[in-house]
Amino acid sequence: MKYRHPERDQIRVDEVLSALGHPVRLAAVRVLAGGGEHNCTSVLTEIGVPAKSTMTHHWRVLRDSGVIIQEPSGRENLLTLRRDDLDARYPGLLDAVLAGARTDEAGS
Amino acid sequence: MKYRHPERDQIRVDEVLSALGHPVRLAAVRVLAGGGEHNCTSVLTEIGVPAKSTMTHHWRVLRDSGVIIQEPSGRENLLTLRRDDLDARYPGLLDAVLAGARTDEAGS
Repeated sequence: MKYRHPERDQIRVDEVLSALGHPVRLAAVRVLAGGGEHNCTSVLTEIGVPAKSTMTHHWRVLRDSGVIIQEPSGRENLLTLRRDDLDARYPGLLDAVLAGARTDEAGS
Repeated sequence: MKYRHPERDQIRVDEVLSALGHPVRLAAVRVLAGGGEHNCTSVLTEIGVPAKSTMTHHWRVLRDSGVIIQEPSGRENLLTLRRDDLDARYPGLLDAVLAGARTDEAGS
């Protein structure tokens, strides 16, 4: 199954913020931002907690908002953070969000 | 009626992103970021559209997430963007969001 993704100039900041504004999705994006090749299972393993079925919704929100690319690869889905697209369209936003997540983590 | 607001160190980035990740709330924050003294009515007048009753929910989300201060003043509620708190806790985030909103506006 091939997924649809918005083009860079179709991305909207309110949709990006809404997608990132959920603890599970933000945790998943932090894993992807950490580098390395990831699929749904490997991200789930790192963040723990939600069931695979719950994540289907979260992956769609992240995909539809332009935050990640999700592409089939064998029996799994490869996941990639669209860092270049986000940095080009909204300079500094993703880095500020990731730094903010670290601030919260350090303080809690 | 006096409202409760989180302290600076109680603010969480996912809640801020979720609060900003709605077109009406983002529009309201942009009005507040533009400076000047604002109350609920004056922001509504600038952004148009939603009924005052709908905005009660949006103000609460912005207040609870630490994005705005809402304080009674006579028969109105004064609204203030917590720029100092947000800039101190999440450097660059608010500016990147506001710039992003301008990017979207220019492109659409």
